[in-house]
Amino acid sequence: MASTDMRFSSRDEHRSWLSAQARLPVGFRVGAAGFGFTPVEVSKPARMTATVIALDRPTEAFAALFTKNAFPGAPVIIGRSRLSEDTLGAIVINNKISNVCAPDGVGTSERICAAAASALGIESRQVLPSSTGVIGWRLPEAALVQALPQTVAALQSESVLPAADGIVTTDLYAKIRRVDLAGGSIVGIAKGAGMIEPNLATMLVYLLTDLDVPREALRASLQHAAAMSFNCMSIDGDTSTSDTVVALSSRAVACPDLLAFQRALDQVCVDLSEDIARNGEGVHHVIRVAVTGAPGIEVARGIGKSVVNSPLFQCAVCGNDPNVGRLVMAIGKFVGEEFPGVDLSRAVLTMGGRRIFADGRFILDHETEAALVAHLRSAELYASTPPADGLTFRPPIGYPPHERCVEIGIDLDAGGASCVVIGTDRSHEYISENADYRS
Amino acid sequence: MASTDMRFSSRDEHRSWLSAQARLPVGFRVGAAGFGFTPVEVSKPARMTATVIALDRPTEAFAALFTKNAFPGAPVIIGRSRLSEDTLGAIVINNKISNVCAPDGVGTSERICAAAASALGIESRQVLPSSTGVIGWRLPEAALVQALPQTVAALQSESVLPAADGIVTTDLYAKIRRVDLAGGSIVGIAKGAGMIEPNLATMLVYLLTDLDVPREALRASLQHAAAMSFNCMSIDGDTSTSDTVVALSSRAVACPDLLAFQRALDQVCVDLSEDIARNGEGVHHVIRVAVTGAPGIEVARGIGKSVVNSPLFQCAVCGNDPNVGRLVMAIGKFVGEEFPGVDLSRAVLTMGGRRIFADGRFILDHETEAALVAHLRSAELYASTPPADGLTFRPPIGYPPHERCVEIGIDLDAGGASCVVIGTDRSHEYISENADYRS
Repeated sequence: MASTDMRFSSRDEHRSWLSAQARLPVGFRVGAAGFGFTPVEVSKPARMTATVIALDRPTEAFAALFTKNAFPGAPVIIGRSRLSEDTLGAIVINNKISNVCAPDGVGTSERICAAAASALGIESRQVLPSSTGVIGWRLPEAALVQALPQTVAALQSESVLPAADGIVTTDLYAKIRRVDLAGGSIVGIAKGAGMIEPNLATMLVYLLTDLDVPREALRASLQHAAAMSFNCMSIDGDTSTSDTVVALSSRAVACPDLLAFQRALDQVCVDLSEDIARNGEGVHHVIRVAVTGAPGIEVARGIGKSVVNSPLFQCAVCGNDPNVGRLVMAIGKFVGEEFPGVDLSRAVLTMGGRRIFADGRFILDHETEAALVAHLRSAELYASTPPADGLTFRPPIGYPPHERCVEIGIDLDAGGASCVVIGTDRSHEYISENADYRS
Repeated sequence: MASTDMRFSSRDEHRSWLSAQARLPVGFRVGAAGFGFTPVEVSKPARMTATVIALDRPTEAFAALFTKNAFPGAPVIIGRSRLSEDTLGAIVINNKISNVCAPDGVGTSERICAAAASALGIESRQVLPSSTGVIGWRLPEAALVQALPQTVAALQSESVLPAADGIVTTDLYAKIRRVDLAGGSIVGIAKGAGMIEPNLATMLVYLLTDLDVPREALRASLQHAAAMSFNCMSIDGDTSTSDTVVALSSRAVACPDLLAFQRALDQVCVDLSEDIARNGEGVHHVIRVAVTGAPGIEVARGIGKSVVNSPLFQCAVCGNDPNVGRLVMAIGKFVGEEFPGVDLSRAVLTMGGRRIFADGRFILDHETEAALVAHLRSAELYASTPPADGLTFRPPIGYPPHERCVEIGIDLDAGGASCVVIGTDRSHEYISENADYRS
């Protein structure tokens, strides 16, 4: 779990912390280049960034997880087929348009891989494509292919920051996490701010390590890390068509301890999933729901997801309103629908560590109400400011001021399973962002 | 399905239409009375309305459906037990506080039933209680009991309007629908504006008829009507702890044709469910999703629900932004998660009757985009106006200006099942309403 003591008071301070996290593991190079284009579907100019993450030498040790959405993007379709290749040498990523169900989308992505491969001197099937952005539009293939030599010319082996910056869409800031271990490191970057309820993977996450972990062990480790991080979070309950998590090892540094590697990878993934939530569209509060004493992991995770996906509970948290009735509604909604046999009679609920429900009844009074309001206020990232045009809300800060969460405890006392689910509130800024995202 | 040609240009015009709908069936009386109280949990004065719906003579012909939420309110617990009573004589309803998991909540509701029964000269077990409003708070029992004689004194047999007005919370207007049939009638009223994804029932709906339908036939008819109306709608995906639908027959008019009765009851329920959506918290657009060619009803309903419950699609519709990529995302999210075997390759999607997706690909160009924007604008109930304090949005009208919907067609060409699902967009007004609902 990320440190809740971390504090930033300005964008510059956050950028300098990010730069310190960004040092690349041995054996990787990263580059990005921006260019202008006009989508075929609307006649409004836009800008896109092409990003390349390259290995000095293609590696056998790579792993990837993809969305379970039944309309996957073309890069996901290609990415799945790359899993059976012998080696992977690079990832080519664009933002702004996600290349989902577009005419000849797979052909377009394959030709972009071929252009990247040619510029890098490797094979097309050694390149994994990723796209994020508007669903349904066509990629500006010619402009993207033209930008790739410039992207490859920009490759450098110092910092992952150009890639963390290059892959964003509506994100307010780049997301980078690292763990140093046994003379090597794991460095992860993430893109994601909306359409986030990952299912076996999240929006776009790239995990780079020089620690030598063989392919099968790396794939198992990634499954484990994703199950407890990206698969236990939601910003809006919408599962993207493009969710992709990739782990690459350059195998440059011996890995003496696979268990330590697993713990480090888990840490990077949990930290990134919290970063994604914290930077979710319009997020004022990150909500952390710890469910314990559940009869099974599906019950624990489902209850946590139901709480963080309840629009009414999300709105109440946004307004610093401890409307704990909606918390109970969200638990009862899920259990009544999915697991009606689960015994809720011994459930104990806490908010900010304070007991609010036990023995089937609420424990509410003026003092508790005041304490819960204080807890919500302490976890607020920012308050809304009236928009200049009266209607269009924008977050007033471009960095995370702290890492505190609204802490919800749900102990069912009905078994041994537990789960921590990360979610967010729902705000005017989310509505403004998404009522006309494409304009 | 409600007429989409219906138009109202003012609140007065809508009220006079409601009054014409409100004529009570033979054998019923309705009364309501308001009173002030202060919740124990916060020290802010509020007002509540006590409403009574009474039969001239208790009836054997009554039916009720209740929420599947695993934390049901005290009135739901009592209501379930009333189903096995010989007769029902009255319903006593309060708004503002829903009496869910409150200390001695069942005892409180039983004592309120007893007070109502005493004022009406019937037995306590012949009274069904209903409560709606804040979850977790305690009912102001003494004040409510004190208000009941006044409520009973106000009983009259002309109009259901006092009850339709009395049961609302955040609703902008009362909801009444009627069908006249064979010399009798069915008149229904509904309360509901938030926490609406009913599951076997919706928030509060009372269906009164003088047509003589025996208990078992009435119960079967209500199941059928609810399955295609209240169970096919969602405003925010949150299933209330208090959902209740009651049907009462005074048996005053012979019912010559049970099939015609079923059709009439279906019509009243579908109309009310559309009214509930149209009057949903902050709703700018009602969305009607017609799913056809599905391999089963669960697939058809699930796809429709996934579309109308997608926060991203809801926000796009609110902004008159035809972001149809999010429509495809929402379909794929549900099918990938719940029915991964369903073949989507022949799916054809339409919006406003215009084909936007076929053969696995989008069909998008400038002209289609313009047509879709025009369709969204035509279905808009109102546009947001900048709030006086810069932050707190309120709907600018208190009546439904028309009954047009955003029309989505999803033909899977993969079976014979179909379903129409009603939903809504997501707006600043919803956020404002729910960020501090209890204040």
